[in-house]
Amino acid sequence: MSGRTVPAKRSWGRADMHVPDHDRTSRIGMPEAVLCSPKSDGQLAAILVDHVERGAPTLFTRLAVDRLDAVLAGASVDASAIDHDAISSTAIVGGTLTARPGRVAIVAAGTSDQAVAAEAARTLTFSGIDATQYVDVGVAGLWRLEARIDEIRHADVVIVVAGMDAALVSVLGGLVANPIIAVPTSVGYGVAAGGSTALHSALATCAQGVAVMNVDNGFGAACAAIRILNLVEAS
Amino acid sequence: MSGRTVPAKRSWGRADMHVPDHDRTSRIGMPEAVLCSPKSDGQLAAILVDHVERGAPTLFTRLAVDRLDAVLAGASVDASAIDHDAISSTAIVGGTLTARPGRVAIVAAGTSDQAVAAEAARTLTFSGIDATQYVDVGVAGLWRLEARIDEIRHADVVIVVAGMDAALVSVLGGLVANPIIAVPTSVGYGVAAGGSTALHSALATCAQGVAVMNVDNGFGAACAAIRILNLVEAS
Amino acid sequence: MSGRTVPAKRSWGRADMHVPDHDRTSRIGMPEAVLCSPKSDGQLAAILVDHVERGAPTLFTRLAVDRLDAVLAGASVDASAIDHDAISSTAIVGGTLTARPGRVAIVAAGTSDQAVAAEAARTLTFSGIDATQYVDVGVAGLWRLEARIDEIRHADVVIVVAGMDAALVSVLGGLVANPIIAVPTSVGYGVAAGGSTALHSALATCAQGVAVMNVDNGFGAACAAIRILNLVEAS
Amino acid sequence: MSGRTVPAKRSWGRADMHVPDHDRTSRIGMPEAVLCSPKSDGQLAAILVDHVERGAPTLFTRLAVDRLDAVLAGASVDASAIDHDAISSTAIVGGTLTARPGRVAIVAAGTSDQAVAAEAARTLTFSGIDATQYVDVGVAGLWRLEARIDEIRHADVVIVVAGMDAALVSVLGGLVANPIIAVPTSVGYGVAAGGSTALHSALATCAQGVAVMNVDNGFGAACAAIRILNLVEAS
Amino acid sequence: MSGRTVPAKRSWGRADMHVPDHDRTSRIGMPEAVLCSPKSDGQLAAILVDHVERGAPTLFTRLAVDRLDAVLAGASVDASAIDHDAISSTAIVGGTLTARPGRVAIVAAGTSDQAVAAEAARTLTFSGIDATQYVDVGVAGLWRLEARIDEIRHADVVIVVAGMDAALVSVLGGLVANPIIAVPTSVGYGVAAGGSTALHSALATCAQGVAVMNVDNGFGAACAAIRILNLVEAS
Amino acid sequence: MSGRTVPAKRSWGRADMHVPDHDRTSRIGMPEAVLCSPKSDGQLAAILVDHVERGAPTLFTRLAVDRLDAVLAGASVDASAIDHDAISSTAIVGGTLTARPGRVAIVAAGTSDQAVAAEAARTLTFSGIDATQYVDVGVAGLWRLEARIDEIRHADVVIVVAGMDAALVSVLGGLVANPIIAVPTSVGYGVAAGGSTALHSALATCAQGVAVMNVDNGFGAACAAIRILNLVEAS
Amino acid sequence: MSGRTVPAKRSWGRADMHVPDHDRTSRIGMPEAVLCSPKSDGQLAAILVDHVERGAPTLFTRLAVDRLDAVLAGASVDASAIDHDAISSTAIVGGTLTARPGRVAIVAAGTSDQAVAAEAARTLTFSGIDATQYVDVGVAGLWRLEARIDEIRHADVVIVVAGMDAALVSVLGGLVANPIIAVPTSVGYGVAAGGSTALHSALATCAQGVAVMNVDNGFGAACAAIRILNLVEAS
Amino acid sequence: MSGRTVPAKRSWGRADMHVPDHDRTSRIGMPEAVLCSPKSDGQLAAILVDHVERGAPTLFTRLAVDRLDAVLAGASVDASAIDHDAISSTAIVGGTLTARPGRVAIVAAGTSDQAVAAEAARTLTFSGIDATQYVDVGVAGLWRLEARIDEIRHADVVIVVAGMDAALVSVLGGLVANPIIAVPTSVGYGVAAGGSTALHSALATCAQGVAVMNVDNGFGAACAAIRILNLVEAS
Repeated sequence: MSGRTVPAKRSWGRADMHVPDHDRTSRIGMPEAVLCSPKSDGQLAAILVDHVERGAPTLFTRLAVDRLDAVLAGASVDASAIDHDAISSTAIVGGTLTARPGRVAIVAAGTSDQAVAAEAARTLTFSGIDATQYVDVGVAGLWRLEARIDEIRHADVVIVVAGMDAALVSVLGGLVANPIIAVPTSVGYGVAAGGSTALHSALATCAQGVAVMNVDNGFGAACAAIRILNLVEAS
Repeated sequence: MSGRTVPAKRSWGRADMHVPDHDRTSRIGMPEAVLCSPKSDGQLAAILVDHVERGAPTLFTRLAVDRLDAVLAGASVDASAIDHDAISSTAIVGGTLTARPGRVAIVAAGTSDQAVAAEAARTLTFSGIDATQYVDVGVAGLWRLEARIDEIRHADVVIVVAGMDAALVSVLGGLVANPIIAVPTSVGYGVAAGGSTALHSALATCAQGVAVMNVDNGFGAACAAIRILNLVEAS
Repeated sequence: MSGRTVPAKRSWGRADMHVPDHDRTSRIGMPEAVLCSPKSDGQLAAILVDHVERGAPTLFTRLAVDRLDAVLAGASVDASAIDHDAISSTAIVGGTLTARPGRVAIVAAGTSDQAVAAEAARTLTFSGIDATQYVDVGVAGLWRLEARIDEIRHADVVIVVAGMDAALVSVLGGLVANPIIAVPTSVGYGVAAGGSTALHSALATCAQGVAVMNVDNGFGAACAAIRILNLVEAS
Repeated sequence: MSGRTVPAKRSWGRADMHVPDHDRTSRIGMPEAVLCSPKSDGQLAAILVDHVERGAPTLFTRLAVDRLDAVLAGASVDASAIDHDAISSTAIVGGTLTARPGRVAIVAAGTSDQAVAAEAARTLTFSGIDATQYVDVGVAGLWRLEARIDEIRHADVVIVVAGMDAALVSVLGGLVANPIIAVPTSVGYGVAAGGSTALHSALATCAQGVAVMNVDNGFGAACAAIRILNLVEAS
Repeated sequence: MSGRTVPAKRSWGRADMHVPDHDRTSRIGMPEAVLCSPKSDGQLAAILVDHVERGAPTLFTRLAVDRLDAVLAGASVDASAIDHDAISSTAIVGGTLTARPGRVAIVAAGTSDQAVAAEAARTLTFSGIDATQYVDVGVAGLWRLEARIDEIRHADVVIVVAGMDAALVSVLGGLVANPIIAVPTSVGYGVAAGGSTALHSALATCAQGVAVMNVDNGFGAACAAIRILNLVEAS
Repeated sequence: MSGRTVPAKRSWGRADMHVPDHDRTSRIGMPEAVLCSPKSDGQLAAILVDHVERGAPTLFTRLAVDRLDAVLAGASVDASAIDHDAISSTAIVGGTLTARPGRVAIVAAGTSDQAVAAEAARTLTFSGIDATQYVDVGVAGLWRLEARIDEIRHADVVIVVAGMDAALVSVLGGLVANPIIAVPTSVGYGVAAGGSTALHSALATCAQGVAVMNVDNGFGAACAAIRILNLVEAS
Repeated sequence: MSGRTVPAKRSWGRADMHVPDHDRTSRIGMPEAVLCSPKSDGQLAAILVDHVERGAPTLFTRLAVDRLDAVLAGASVDASAIDHDAISSTAIVGGTLTARPGRVAIVAAGTSDQAVAAEAARTLTFSGIDATQYVDVGVAGLWRLEARIDEIRHADVVIVVAGMDAALVSVLGGLVANPIIAVPTSVGYGVAAGGSTALHSALATCAQGVAVMNVDNGFGAACAAIRILNLVEAS
Repeated sequence: MSGRTVPAKRSWGRADMHVPDHDRTSRIGMPEAVLCSPKSDGQLAAILVDHVERGAPTLFTRLAVDRLDAVLAGASVDASAIDHDAISSTAIVGGTLTARPGRVAIVAAGTSDQAVAAEAARTLTFSGIDATQYVDVGVAGLWRLEARIDEIRHADVVIVVAGMDAALVSVLGGLVANPIIAVPTSVGYGVAAGGSTALHSALATCAQGVAVMNVDNGFGAACAAIRILNLVEAS
């Protein structure tokens, strides 16, 4: 073991520590995206500048509207370069991708689940895919779902977004034949707080072949739908 | 503090340590019952002899059929004095209570939930109350529930028994106006093993006013129904 | 799979995404209610305007007093149209329902459980039902409960509200013959934080036939009581 | 409330309590299947006779080889009518479905995960779909995965089966563009016992668009793949 | 780092690996005891021989009656040297300690908690201390506790043993002024299985100054009582 | 069931809902105390006025210094009537109780555990009992404990306060013969956050006869010590 | 998507599905090992034959003595080719590796932890490294540890094995300067059952720089020690 | 028990309650460090003054930049005496230790894990040891890791920092032969929130001999590396 000197303190916090995976889209067909919530304002500002300069379409997720000013303050970019949406807490830089075939239905149990549904919808819109939201069709009032079910059945992929007991997952899973992806949400209180009840309920559904994403992962559900549409397009 | 001598070893395992709450029925209108699973064969044999001798109607719950012989071997009672049912793992000693008004519907999501549904049914039958079971009406095939829903709505109280994601609780809660009591079951695997998913799902139901029992507590659900029917009868 | 164009961004955040279940009262006899906590100020303002315009009696729950101003700011309604109560965090729009028979006793273990007890009481008052609260009758000082027990026994339904170890549930369950509904609360620290100890304790009660609601669900307990009173009235 | 007599004890354990959902295949394209583990030997025997008599292709899952004799003993059917496989713990009655297009790769991290991988493979084979297993390609020896990756990429759908830390899910998710369905397994000890570590790891994967099934749910993963292939076929 | 040769395999399983803490009694006044459940039959046989030869009074706990024969088979000791009690699963070797002042009341909520109560009683008896058990005084039938409470109040220390919701802990804590030690038991099902509900309930008791032991730790509760009596005796 | 009218809204938030258990001290020898954290500012102000007017010594716990002003603002009392201590977050109204015999050692593993240790000390001081704190004697530096152990051994009762892994509990339990009460604290991060690791560690201690309180319950540990000193004094 | 035929059923249970990572030793210096517990008897028999035929030194872990006969029955190998040890549940095939420098001390809190300590010792012995076990040095009797501490300090690496509250980890971590690896064990009952308390306690240790393995992972601790000794040897 | 007077209130909050373990460095070779997060501003100010006056090199960890002003306000020290780093939330007082041999690679899965990686790096720099960070090499884009792996392999010790599913731990463990220490981070949402998924994943890694620290414990990982380098230096 050879002796070594103490390193200079240069190794913390440099912007080049974000090594974007720029060829992800070509390699596995996934949209280029940046998850913002765990990053500091400074880190986000540096990443934002980098992406605006490169100009390639990028989706920023979990970028709450009340963080936007602090991030922009540290980034020397034109605010108009960023298309931010408050409900889905997403921002698009560099425009959306080319429109392509495929239709996804996003079905949400309640108004409270809308932020997650919107994240999925926005990811699909960014990716050039048609997405329609059906909100407030919880199973405690089945007639609301029944009124929409024929339209939902015509989508290529169905994303079901539900908190609390996520009973909508099982009901929809028994009514729809196409691929279904469930996104449990953290909406709820008591045993439902944080989303573990909705998650476990979705995983334990008695409906066959419903696949599940992490709690509140609307972005991931959209990506799973894109993988399916990629396969359809290639077939 | 006065000195004392070492006590004789007489204090363990005496049969008189089971102090039955014999006036429970008159005091709060609940059936006299003995929960068998946590008791030893010896304890159960002593309790059984005591109850057979007294002759008052008593319900033994969680008495699995494969324990029955060991318990009876230690008890000098006539086997015919015991009416045991294998599916519900219950035994009745001293006959059932007088028939009384009231009808309870017990709705179970799947064949696998039948043991719990049967425990509830048997407790009601023992208590002189009419109970009807509706099994295998899980929400993944809604038509099976729809075919029975009108009949279910005519019951005074509905007990819904469901494991896995217990989605039936929310669906039924939105279709029925009368009192509903949910019993989550331990049926399930993975996240649903042990019943915590069904329990949390039932507690988090979006249907209003559904009350919940402990996992697999069919006996308790029947008791809750009896409390309601007692009130109706007294009104 | 036919080609489709990128949808316009019109699909997020529209007020018509709240699809109220207006016939719930007639269908299953439950009060029309809106759970406010998981909704955004904007969503609530839109819903509030809608309900004030329709004029039908509606109960808003989990509407903390410190959110009220922000919600009202976004809603062009007369503040006097809203009857808000700070302790129960509820608001009534369109007046209460017609008074009807039935009396409910709401028994709370400690002063700290009062917010939940008040939510139950307010839901019943809104529904036209007589509700009396008995607060600070925890079992560590049994004489306080004993002084009230005869009055409590005369209620049609008893709602017991308790945090910490929820020992009051078992004690009351052994003293009262009428239907009992337990509401565990999130009051507590250490192992009791969040209410899971109270919830599990209530579910595991040795008293027979006590049904349980989700943590802090005073509204749901009132609804369960209403289901019971509906049955009594119809009998 | 009219008076009623005590019901006869006819209501427990009747075979007609299993109400099969016979049109599930036509309605949502899913295979007809019976989950055996939570059912009693008696229940299974009755169900088996019913299906053999009807003759329609049916898959029995979670039917461990050491329960087979007890079930058959209660069923008056010819043992040759049942095609049982010990590794996957499945049985096929009435033959497999017609062969159809589509190829699924089932990639398992270790030998220990084989039972779950086999359940998925067997479900697909039963459904007439080509399934290939790739076992023992855990990421601690990446070269084993690299040797197979090109072949895996040519499948329409990839099912990844992994216990312990399920790291294979993320690695494969970054290498494959087609739909991926992850099945965590209960293989493991200490923190990994029961499969919750693998499940959480799969849900939290940094790879985009990987959907997840309940622990050990190889059958469900196959059904999710079938939903996708149904869409491809219909497009 | 100097080179070393491979050690002979002598290092596993030698009896001298059990290094008893023989002066524990003189150092901290605690009884000499051996916890048997996690040790193998071989380990226990070696320890047993060692203690019989030394002759000093020793308590063996968690030695279930159905393991006794296997342990004795490997130990060349006279069976009469061992005083085994089946209910408490304890064995005494070398006789009990000298009788000393102090009286402990052991109050158990139900018959099912008797094994744990008996472990506490037996530990005290072994230590020369007077112990009286009061079994089946659960709070759902308060009159049973009231009939005994005066006698219980006269004990120096009260040990309360309770499973399920452990409500007895709070009730007793409000009625008794002397030191109280709670032992939650693993008796229960559903949420109460394993004892965590009883444990959390005891820890969250609203009664002041009740100290708690690990689940089923009757031995430890007796030791805590002995620490208190040691202090009384020395004062 | 007789008809009833809608109750007036008088039933929420009245100060008389706090029903103090004024004879607790005489009945079970415990100090009169009010747990402040779960109560609202308004509730506390009303309770404070009541106690200042009565003049009996009362201890207010969990009254953080930054809530003090808000509480006092609502209470028409002289601030000098309240003896508040910021570190222990306690306030004494009506003076302390008469000094009495007995000495308690409070041993804390780290500086971070001081708030909990101080709550215990302050409760004892309020009760007229001598309490000495030994802070920062964690086991990773055993010499610090060794330097104090002789003094600690001379206390009548030892309260050990420890967060993180609470290893101090086992070490002290093996060195001290007198009664030991462990208070796990919520100090810690990662697996230790919230105190469950310290709690479980204390409950699982290999030292004999150490009794445990809820997380952060310094007040309760002092009460348990008082129960013991009451017994000593009465003997 | 091209059509494909149904695959033959050849794809389950073939022995070649175990793809050993034969160059692991040369690549990362780790011993070649097979974890037996999750594999079936048939799988193990096939693997065993393969390794005996190849002749390279291999360690089989978690091979309980009572499974040995069943595995050997399916493998056509000479029993003498297998060196099985019952305490550690390990088997060595093909002899041990060449002796090499380095000494590891394995310190266990109690006799009950011996199986895990032995697994670590056996892995080191197999790898040609000197390992010494120090058993029954729990911290409740510190003198036992003090008598051995100088010898322990002379080891290159210390592995500490502890169940229950694992307090030994912190004590030893404060006394030893060399690398320490902690292995929590599943020994314990109540809150300590399964080992999570010991695991969390070890992770939360106040001693600096103690690294932790999964519960009962004696094999992994030995591997971690080997990685360290590899570095020492290469330096 | 002799009578005693009430102690003066002098026993809370004195600065001398922090008893630093000043000889820790000489005794076990660990850096002198103060964990700031659980301490109050007042406690930290007193400790800071003490250390600045003594002048010995000390590392303060978990000292977030937004607490710095409040702490300094209470401490009469020159701000220049403190070298604070915002990313790692650490401060160095009294300068760093002498440079010494050894090189540590710190590999982090994502930008979000940088705070933890920086804490480890800063601890090493403070201790005179060369540390290099490799950030954003998550396994979903394996090429990024492959580009750096040769350089990483040349470090003496590798610290791997990863949140979410921590799959990087297993991949790196299979590629590197030297000691590896894993630090799971609390970065993540849903099931990954708080870090338990990353922790469990790291503990359950299929790579051999990877030791694990508590969640976010970058400091501890550096200390574990120092223990290893101490051994290397002494050999």
